[in-house]
This record gives sequence, structure tokens and C-alpha cells, in this order.
Amino acid sequence: MVVVPSAMSGETNRLLGLASELAPAQPQNSYYRELDMLAATGEQASSALLAIALQAEGMPSVSYAGWQVPVRTDSSYTKARIEAIDDQRVRADLDAGRVVIVTGFQGIDPAGNITTLGRGGSDTSAVAMAAALKASECLIYTDVDGVYTTDPRVVPAARRLSTVSFEEMLEMASLGSKVLQIRSVEFAGKYKVPMRVLSSFTPWDMDLAEEAQSGTLITFEEDEKMEKAVVSGIAFNRGEAKISVLGVPDTPGIAYRILGPVAEANIEVDVILQNISKDGLADFSFTVSQGDYQRAMDLLQSKVVPELGAKEAVGDPSICKVSIVGIGMRSHAGVASTMFRTLSEEGINIQMISTSEIKTSVVIDEKYLELAVRALHTAFGLDKSE
Amino acid sequence: MVVVPSAMSGETNRLLGLASELAPAQPQNSYYRELDMLAATGEQASSALLAIALQAEGMPSVSYAGWQVPVRTDSSYTKARIEAIDDQRVRADLDAGRVVIVTGFQGIDPAGNITTLGRGGSDTSAVAMAAALKASECLIYTDVDGVYTTDPRVVPAARRLSTVSFEEMLEMASLGSKVLQIRSVEFAGKYKVPMRVLSSFTPWDMDLAEEAQSGTLITFEEDEKMEKAVVSGIAFNRGEAKISVLGVPDTPGIAYRILGPVAEANIEVDVILQNISKDGLADFSFTVSQGDYQRAMDLLQSKVVPELGAKEAVGDPSICKVSIVGIGMRSHAGVASTMFRTLSEEGINIQMISTSEIKTSVVIDEKYLELAVRALHTAFGLDKSE
Repeated sequence: MVVVPSAMSGETNRLLGLASELAPAQPQNSYYRELDMLAATGEQASSALLAIALQAEGMPSVSYAGWQVPVRTDSSYTKARIEAIDDQRVRADLDAGRVVIVTGFQGIDPAGNITTLGRGGSDTSAVAMAAALKASECLIYTDVDGVYTTDPRVVPAARRLSTVSFEEMLEMASLGSKVLQIRSVEFAGKYKVPMRVLSSFTPWDMDLAEEAQSGTLITFEEDEKMEKAVVSGIAFNRGEAKISVLGVPDTPGIAYRILGPVAEANIEVDVILQNISKDGLADFSFTVSQGDYQRAMDLLQSKVVPELGAKEAVGDPSICKVSIVGIGMRSHAGVASTMFRTLSEEGINIQMISTSEIKTSVVIDEKYLELAVRALHTAFGLDKSE
Repeated sequence: MVVVPSAMSGETNRLLGLASELAPAQPQNSYYRELDMLAATGEQASSALLAIALQAEGMPSVSYAGWQVPVRTDSSYTKARIEAIDDQRVRADLDAGRVVIVTGFQGIDPAGNITTLGRGGSDTSAVAMAAALKASECLIYTDVDGVYTTDPRVVPAARRLSTVSFEEMLEMASLGSKVLQIRSVEFAGKYKVPMRVLSSFTPWDMDLAEEAQSGTLITFEEDEKMEKAVVSGIAFNRGEAKISVLGVPDTPGIAYRILGPVAEANIEVDVILQNISKDGLADFSFTVSQGDYQRAMDLLQSKVVPELGAKEAVGDPSICKVSIVGIGMRSHAGVASTMFRTLSEEGINIQMISTSEIKTSVVIDEKYLELAVRALHTAFGLDKSE
């Protein structure tokens, strides 16, 4: 068994808080390098403490920092990517009967500097370690006991999924279901590592057979899955805002000329729509997080609209995104229209639509979020049987 | 400039406290290894924070953990010894105009494990780094502004010494003057690194000429020193206890047969005296710390005294040791007798005497400590002139 702990609760924030008390952030490499030196201590401490606790239970165990394994990454401080993991040292300890504890979240770059993988990087570390060791399963212990058809706080009838396909999980993670960090899911997909999401409060003495029934298995075998529900879950994102630039002369490069300045201002854009142009004029809409809304509007009105010769920029600072996700959508027609009909029957106006092979997202007024999620959960037969 | 920070105040205790909350200490290598993994994070965090603070002041700087330099040590976890320091990486940064920050207290063993040097090890790290880089001086910033003729809390007339010889410093450190960790002084002696003890509250913008007048320089040049006072300082140790084994048959190996079991019980012994034997019976006395007194007495009475056929073990749980230290004692007769006369004039009974080339220590009743130190400080002309 190899264990990949994250830092103790609140520790990473405490450490980074000390840095920002000392000095404002300096957007340069030498500063990010020190942030990584600093933040990496959180997992090193929790890993050593876990080894001590296991030893006290009579279990031989040893902890390694990322650089000791080593977990090799590129040099992108605070958001490094794992490039390779040397499994020799870990394997030697496993062969000697030790539980090996490897710090999550961190590695070492080619020049010997400590790097971190960014927030939530411990999940990614665990999956990468599982891939390197060709582990039979990677168990991710979180604050929920699995992946649900939707957020149980919104829909009490939500069910835990015993399995979910890798692609569905990827969509759900990217659509705001915060169970797993999306990079860890991508990594699992790349290396075909079966992941199981479990509660941290799973009894520690559960046997493997019981554990195999707990949580949610993220699988790569689609066959068994295809027979099941067309829609696996309803994902949603609160706290978004919509911005439309109206009456844009429809020339090549509109998207870049509008979104280029937005990206330069470090504003992340989610759904993007360009309407069919009428009379040579197009409407261009996109969503941003509510925190970035005012900044984006100011930027558009002061700079982008006049430069483009567009008519105006209008916005709605309180919308949300609701998505149905299901690998079955690939082979079932009419899924999207069921979604649209359900929302229409509830009197909910759809403002934007965006689709991919296995999901359909709609942007609606934020006040309808709960209503929409509950109606769709029922309409797609996801409610608990009792 | 190379800076060697220790952990933030209280941090090492906080980390080790977390470990002891989790599990009782397990006296085995695998446990000590994890303690070092844990404790080493304290200096790594403070080093990264210092680099961030310096960068914010516009000073290019970079921090390295011991393993990155690398500072090579043996594998004695929690009390490792530095074996070699590779100066290549540090030198390259210095040449590039960076302030280099190296974590104190820690290194890496031949197998790539993190080791720590034990409490106060950051001083030793700094001296070792100064030796490796052939630095002109190693400045140790502490909570006092130098080495004093004695503790100013006991003798308000105590003076700061502008210089003190390496050997005197070694005696004072070993005799309870807590300014410097004794290992760092030994290390400085071995590599002839001039050390200066300064206050942490020395103004940061002090120029080098002013700094060279501050604190206390620990020097290796005896010539200038020899002209000065015969006695440089009065050191003392509170909290000791005395134990005597009386009526021991005077056969070879007494010391070993008495102190062997004491050492095995991990009790540290300080002053040791064996009296001239009468009628084939000897008295054997030694001092231990007060915390070990009861354990040592039990051990002697239950085991050592009966096995040796000694008469009895008696003790005094509240004595102290007072020492005069001075390199001038080598060439001046009568120094010890001045000490004994001074104490006698104050009515203080001397229980044990121990001498070396440059110090004379006496064991007396703990209640006379302040009186003895003040009287000796005056007798040897150490009081401030005003």
C-alpha cells in the first residue's frame, strides 16, 4: 500500500498566509519558487506524522517527500506537471513489507528545485503514483462518500453512483462537481488508472471486499455502463455571470478580438456563443465568474466595444449553468429535447445552450437553479426508488 | 551573504508536539527518521519566507533546504553530524548576486534521507557553511547581544566581552552559558571560523564597521588576549544534584561499575570525583541533573550499592556548579586559591572541586549560587568600571 497524504486541514492556507503577510505577491519565477518551498512543507509534515502514527500501530512505514522518490516535474512553480516517477525506491520498501507514504502535491524539477502541482494536486499525485506502480486501484478519500447523481444538498433524492465512466467524471468535474480535481481525472484517463472515490470516514478496518462496494468507481469499461441510464448525473455551476457584445461587425477574428483582452486581464471564460449574424452584425456571448463580472464589463465597454465598432455590451451578473451528463447520450437521440421540454414546463427560460458528445449545458437565471436541477433529476429517472 | 535561519519561534516544539500527541516515542531508527522529516519542515518554511521578504525588498535571493546544497551528514537521525558541504550551488548563486538562504539544522544522509543535527543545530549549520565557503566571519544572531562576564540577570555589573577565545567560549558553553550551542563552537574551532555573537535586534542597516564593534568575537588569536584579565567570565549551572557512593571497596574498575549502569539508564553525569581511599575503601561522587536525581538514587540503592558491597549511597538534590573560566589561568598561579578564599570569606562551603587548564569549577549548595557568582565577579575584577 502506498499512501499519498495532502497537508493537514488549513495548513496550506496558513503557510501561504504567512507569505502574503510578509510581502505582496511578486509575479516572478523566483517568488513562485519560494512559495513552493514553503507550501511543500505542509505535506512533508503530514506524511511524517502519518508514518509515526502507523508505526505506533505496529505497521512498518516510511515517508518520502516528492524529491526523494523522485516525482519528476517540469519547472512551472505552483502549477507543475508530473513528467515521470521513479518507482524503484518505493518498490524496494513495498517488497520489504513497508507502507510507503509519499507527499502529495509536490515534486522536483530537472534543476533540483521543489515544485508543487497547484491546489488539489494531492489527488493528481496519488493517481500518478498509482499509474507508475501499475496499482490495481487508486482510492481517493474525500469529504463525500462518492459521486452522486447531483448535489444531495439541492436534491435530497440524489443517489450515489456505484460506477461512473471516466468521461462522465471528467465532464462532471469540469462542470462544478467538486469531488475530484479535474487534473487527477485527466491523469487517470491517460494512464487508465481505476479510481474509487470514498469518504475519509470509511472505517479503517473495512476489508477489501466491503471497500470494493463503497464509494464510486470511475471506470474505463463502457460496455456494462451502456445498458444503464442515458443520463448519469446533473451538474451545475453557481455564481456565474453572462456578458453579451451586441452588433459586432461579422469579420474574421471576432472571438479573438473580444476574448483576447479578456484573457490578458486573467479573466477565465466558460461558455462561449456566437450567434448567427444578421445584416453583417453578430452577437457574441460568454460567461465568466461573478467575481470577474465588473472587471470584464468595464474592459469591454471602455476598450473592446469602441475598438470593434460594436453596438454595446450588456450583461447579467447572476446566472448559473446546469448540465446533464451521460455517456448514453451518444447513442440516444432526444435527450437534449427532453431537457428543454422539462425546463419549459417549469417556466424556466434558457439563455444559452452548449453541447458536447456526452453533456448538454444550459445557462439560466440563477434563481431557478434548484428548481431546474430537481426537475431534471426527476425527468431523467435519477431519483432514489423509495 | 549566506543566511542560515532556524525555524520560527516555537515551531519545532509545535511540530514535535504533534508527533507526541499521535503516538508515544518509539526508540527505533524508523521513528527518529520520521521525526527528522517532520522537524526539518520548520526551517524550510522560515527559509522560504525569508527569501520572499528579501525579494520584496528588491534583494535577489533564493532558499535551499539542506539536501539541495547538499549538506551531507551521517545517518544519526535527530543528532546527525555534518560530514561535508558542497559549495558549488551556493557559490554560483553568490556569483550571480543573490543572497543565499540555507535551512539550518538539517542535511541529507548517504541514502538520501533527511537528517537533523539536534537542538540548536542551526548555529552549527551556519558555522559549517562559513567553513565550507571560507567566509571571513560567521555572525550568530541570538537573543542576547554578546557573551558576558557572567549572566547579567544574576550580576547587574556584568560586562559584555568584546572578544573571547575559542577555548574559553567552549568552556563557558559547556558550563551552562547558553549563548551558543557547544557543537557550533567546537566546529568553529576545528575549522578556525571566526564567530561573532550579536543580538537579533541589531539594526538591519548597521554598516560593517559598526557591526565589527558589536557583540562578542570568538577569536583564535591568543596573543592579544593574553595581556588581558586572567579570568574572563564566571559560568554556572543551576539545577544539579550530587550523589556519593560511600565505602566502596577500592578495586580497579570502580568508576565503570558505578557509572556504567547510570549511563545505561541514559542519565548524564557531569562532575566526577573519586576520593583517596582509606582502609581500602573509597568514596565516589558525581553530579547529575535534578530531573535524573531520584532515578539515579534508586538505581544505586537497589542495584549498584549491593553489587559493589559499598556502604551506602547518599545525595544532595539541590546543588549548583560555579566556574571561573580564563585562558590566562594557564600562566597565572594562585587563581584557584583566590576563588577558594573568596568563597570562604562569604561562608560558602565547597563540596566538590574540578579543574581543567582554563577553568576551575566548584560544587556548592544551590542557595549560595547568586552570592558566589557576585563575589567571584568582583574578586576577579570583572565588574563594570562605573
